[in-house]
Amino acid sequence: MSLESFFNPESVAIVGASRQKGKVGHEILTNMIGAGYEGRIFPVNPKADAIEGLECYPSLKAIGSKPDLVIVIVPAKAVPAVMRECAKIGVKSVIIITAGFKEVGEEGKELENQVLRIARQAGIRVIGPNCLGAIAPANKVNASFGGDLPSAGAIAYLSQSGALLAAILDMANASGIGFSKLVSIGNKTDIDELDLIKALGPDPDTKVIAGYLESISDGNAFVREAEQISHQKPILLMKSGATEAGAQAASSHTGSLAGSETAYECMFERAGIIRCESIKQQFDYAQAFANQPLPAGPRVAVITNAGGPGIMAADAIEQQGLTFAKLDDTTVAKLSAALPAAANVHNPIDVLGDALADRYELALEAALDDPNVDAVLVLLTPQAMTESAGTARVTVKMARQKPSKPILACFLGAAKVKEGVGILREGKIPQYDSPESAVGTIKAMADYARWRSRPKRVVKLFGVNRRKVENIVERHLRQSVYEIGEAESKEMLEAYGFVTPKGSIATTAEQAANIAQQLGYPVVLKIWSPDILHKSDVGGVKVGLKGEQQVRDAFDLMMYRIPKKLPEANILGVLVQEMCGGGKEVILGMNRDPHFGPLMMFGMGGIMVEVLKDVSFYPAPLTADEAKQMLLNTKTYQMLKGVRGEEGVDIEAVAEGLQRLSQLVTEFPQIQEMDINPYVVGPEGTTPIAVDARISVQQV
Amino acid sequence: MSLESFFNPESVAIVGASRQKGKVGHEILTNMIGAGYEGRIFPVNPKADAIEGLECYPSLKAIGSKPDLVIVIVPAKAVPAVMRECAKIGVKSVIIITAGFKEVGEEGKELENQVLRIARQAGIRVIGPNCLGAIAPANKVNASFGGDLPSAGAIAYLSQSGALLAAILDMANASGIGFSKLVSIGNKTDIDELDLIKALGPDPDTKVIAGYLESISDGNAFVREAEQISHQKPILLMKSGATEAGAQAASSHTGSLAGSETAYECMFERAGIIRCESIKQQFDYAQAFANQPLPAGPRVAVITNAGGPGIMAADAIEQQGLTFAKLDDTTVAKLSAALPAAANVHNPIDVLGDALADRYELALEAALDDPNVDAVLVLLTPQAMTESAGTARVTVKMARQKPSKPILACFLGAAKVKEGVGILREGKIPQYDSPESAVGTIKAMADYARWRSRPKRVVKLFGVNRRKVENIVERHLRQSVYEIGEAESKEMLEAYGFVTPKGSIATTAEQAANIAQQLGYPVVLKIWSPDILHKSDVGGVKVGLKGEQQVRDAFDLMMYRIPKKLPEANILGVLVQEMCGGGKEVILGMNRDPHFGPLMMFGMGGIMVEVLKDVSFYPAPLTADEAKQMLLNTKTYQMLKGVRGEEGVDIEAVAEGLQRLSQLVTEFPQIQEMDINPYVVGPEGTTPIAVDARISVQQV
Repeated sequence: MSLESFFNPESVAIVGASRQKGKVGHEILTNMIGAGYEGRIFPVNPKADAIEGLECYPSLKAIGSKPDLVIVIVPAKAVPAVMRECAKIGVKSVIIITAGFKEVGEEGKELENQVLRIARQAGIRVIGPNCLGAIAPANKVNASFGGDLPSAGAIAYLSQSGALLAAILDMANASGIGFSKLVSIGNKTDIDELDLIKALGPDPDTKVIAGYLESISDGNAFVREAEQISHQKPILLMKSGATEAGAQAASSHTGSLAGSETAYECMFERAGIIRCESIKQQFDYAQAFANQPLPAGPRVAVITNAGGPGIMAADAIEQQGLTFAKLDDTTVAKLSAALPAAANVHNPIDVLGDALADRYELALEAALDDPNVDAVLVLLTPQAMTESAGTARVTVKMARQKPSKPILACFLGAAKVKEGVGILREGKIPQYDSPESAVGTIKAMADYARWRSRPKRVVKLFGVNRRKVENIVERHLRQSVYEIGEAESKEMLEAYGFVTPKGSIATTAEQAANIAQQLGYPVVLKIWSPDILHKSDVGGVKVGLKGEQQVRDAFDLMMYRIPKKLPEANILGVLVQEMCGGGKEVILGMNRDPHFGPLMMFGMGGIMVEVLKDVSFYPAPLTADEAKQMLLNTKTYQMLKGVRGEEGVDIEAVAEGLQRLSQLVTEFPQIQEMDINPYVVGPEGTTPIAVDARISVQQV
Repeated sequence: MSLESFFNPESVAIVGASRQKGKVGHEILTNMIGAGYEGRIFPVNPKADAIEGLECYPSLKAIGSKPDLVIVIVPAKAVPAVMRECAKIGVKSVIIITAGFKEVGEEGKELENQVLRIARQAGIRVIGPNCLGAIAPANKVNASFGGDLPSAGAIAYLSQSGALLAAILDMANASGIGFSKLVSIGNKTDIDELDLIKALGPDPDTKVIAGYLESISDGNAFVREAEQISHQKPILLMKSGATEAGAQAASSHTGSLAGSETAYECMFERAGIIRCESIKQQFDYAQAFANQPLPAGPRVAVITNAGGPGIMAADAIEQQGLTFAKLDDTTVAKLSAALPAAANVHNPIDVLGDALADRYELALEAALDDPNVDAVLVLLTPQAMTESAGTARVTVKMARQKPSKPILACFLGAAKVKEGVGILREGKIPQYDSPESAVGTIKAMADYARWRSRPKRVVKLFGVNRRKVENIVERHLRQSVYEIGEAESKEMLEAYGFVTPKGSIATTAEQAANIAQQLGYPVVLKIWSPDILHKSDVGGVKVGLKGEQQVRDAFDLMMYRIPKKLPEANILGVLVQEMCGGGKEVILGMNRDPHFGPLMMFGMGGIMVEVLKDVSFYPAPLTADEAKQMLLNTKTYQMLKGVRGEEGVDIEAVAEGLQRLSQLVTEFPQIQEMDINPYVVGPEGTTPIAVDARISVQQV
């Protein structure tokens, strides 16, 4: 991987190495030595001859050879000079620990830009500044001041908060969690989360990529890369700054803008990224992903030596949307024959309070062999006869014998289960502090497995009249008009295969009556003026007109009253339009997120959308499955399907509408925001009508 | 308190005490001795002379004096004989550890009933059978086989799962959490959760009552008692068997029925009971409630030495519905003057990575003095200069100096913060493993504080015609008719002050036209038959009839067609009724829960109620505030208030409808189920109309 020199350097120079204990420049040096690093270490400090027994150099140049990696701890103002020195001797990898850059304001930002310019010119890759460093346990590299080298393992961790990484290290060391790589990305002036997942994706030592991020520099590129990687290994992200308060804190802290929450949510979903709510949850998940196979489905069997925790697990399984496995008859027979009469041989399998390890073993074997079981949760409470260590041993043994299904454990207690928990850890069985967190982890695994097995994304391309839309959009932009009016919005939709209500503009009552006659009654009249956006507010909409007289009356009243209310408005006439009745009203929309591009929206139309907020989002371009899933993600879907024997609407047609809209906004990045509201849909076989639309465009 | 002999007995007999290590009869004896119990212990075992140096008695009688508490460990079949012996010598308090009763089936149930009969006759109170025992650390009583005596503290814990209690004890001992009392209630044949909260309510050693329950024996009495106690001290319950899978597991395990989830939810809410989702959450909460004052409001200030965790806390504060405190100008000024320039002097107060304890101290003082702050969360990550112990010390000091606001801490890490965490525990500052769980705890405290400060519940009684309803209900029950028809349902509603649509029964088209004339058009026609419940399904409802001819036509068509479809139906005529248009349709309803009695329901009317499930529940009788809160708990409320400038409806009138319905179902326990759907409500000042109603009754 391209970041090899950071994680497995042949030699390391530490610029700003210090003799003084407690100083960062001393801590990094002793951490490198303490890790057992096998390459050469060159402390650089003009004021010292030797530090910790290593020869010290007055400058990088004085080393006489090119260090593979340079770690910089000198004060911020001295960093550009060090960078120039690095450039001169051909160094390609630098970690800048030093703080005092972008995060402290304009002056620091200028300094950081200067550093970046030097790096770019010389082809130097930089981690930091304002970071904790980088760690690679298997390579005995601890280029950080985060603490002792953790054990080697399959989890890579990248963090935008150095302090958090230090806390994670401390916790991981206490519980024996191992890592492949740990990186504090700091201000990520050069190397950012995208570079790191690119490097970690193909890294054979990394089975799980986990991270804490406050912002994502290039959202679109990141999720595109993440989507590729998620097919090979899971990415677990804790993304903070989710709420308004959080985002405020985020921008004051990192000087970077946080993306909008909805956009993150659906981009992460699309990319298969597993979003974690807390660091604890992230490590709950990471342990299982790193050490256990994925479940083939959602059916969970529980083995317990006490009823209470079994019920808690059952509750959690149902609440989280997993399935409480129904054991196969042969399993039940096997358990009945082997377990005491009082045992529960159905799920949760209760091996009873006096169970020794042997009962757990046979219950585990039976559950793992059961074709109706996708994952097994082993619960243990310390009772008088309980063999915590023995039970842990048989669990590890069964996991090795039958490695195709995930096994998670929750041994409740502390001192009494300590030995057992240690054996589980050693045997790579993830152990949880509560049934709920174990079940939550299985849920995350099942969701990820489902994501991995979804069919390949194929976006259907419809035959459309792209040129027509191009003309309309470009004309508006040339004239600096950024809101496209109803007529041309509908022309754009028609060009993309949407059907809009029939109708024409009338300039006299006579004409209006004629048009209505041709359309057939009832009709709708709408005032037609580029200057009137909210027609209803000025009495400019009249629906359900049923005859010539009503049409004439409505026309004349509009033409009389509205100019009085809005004397400045340029009124071009009145639109006479067919009524679209009998269908259900939904809204199809799009919002272009500054980071992630077009986000499609679907929901209930009319005023209900604002009250109930029953909408779903997904990034364009949409596949047919994704469009249908957007419908399924709303409660409106139930209504569309038909409630209480009432006839449903043409669901496929709604999904197709979303796909067509997705194609339109994908092909025209100038469209910033648009919605079709209401989109009136009728029973199967009928054509939905785009009754009204709003489109806004922008120069790109 | 009445259960004094269980928690502070003057002497204890252990019937079934054993010499054999590992046996429960041995473990309980050694646990009592190991706890340092100061009263006399009488082991009872005919086969031993002495156990663990204590003289052993062949029978209870042989002791020669009456033990204050008897613990029974003999096999189930021998328990009745021991109970009879207890009765004979006047023992009043017995803990039956022995299993093999109700939980193993019919035979065991019979045995348990026998035990209970003896106890009742002799006035003996019993904990168990099938339990772990009882513990009172301050009294040096460990009448259990749950493990070592925990330290004394302010939390009482009662558990329906003995194994879980053992695990809790083990965990608590590891983290130094103290208890006032711990009780395993087992099959709760006599003493149950209600007896225990009654005893723990006035217990001066108990500041927090916590428990794990799978079922509640007398739901109504329990929540009534809990509501009283909640005014003095919080009750934290983990109630499992919440979901279908859980409830199945629960009933197969404990042989007791779990109440319905909705009922539990709203009864707990009414009683101020704090429901916990996991044992971990319960102890997160319990620690804070036991050791910290309640916050006066929802405004939280965060102090941190690192940005990342500060953002996490800010996110959590917003997501959980708390308020991110806006610091007072004087606080900001104070902090600006005292902290380094790079520090964030707004919330979250970032004292920076190199902060020593002194910065935390001044930030804490400023935050506690700030009138805009109700609670303070202290975050710490272990960085190079961080003083974990020192920071813990100043936190404890500030908590003592300014004891009116709660302080919670989250020191992230393990080894590096261990000393600090110990000092916090010692100083009664609750410490959390993540910002999220600390914030969740503050939320629980703020909610409970709000519950405590709500005004006294006053249920308004309306002037009603109770006699009329009594007549209708009793006549139906005498005739074994359990569904009350539309006409009489409406009479009942009218007797309780509801307005129903005007109308009369017509038996000829002529009559129908006359009635319609009197009512004024438009009208509704409904077929009138005790045998037709779903009128629409047979074409028995016709709405919006606008003139005599339409009424005559509709009448004749119904009278011609319906008898053909339903030749058996006894058709009494056609109801001609005024149309209630222009309002919004809501549903008011009631379901009588077998445990908790009448639960009121409010929601959107029509088919939407089934799709969107936008309903709220609350137990009757309702106060005006509670009725209004039921409205507020739905999204429908937004629609009722009026969306987009649209006129709203008379909210007070809807709330009054709920209160009147609440009075009806409270005064008539025979009403099992009823709803008014639709209840049509118009703008302020108009009277809502109960358009349709269904009532079912039952003998009570």
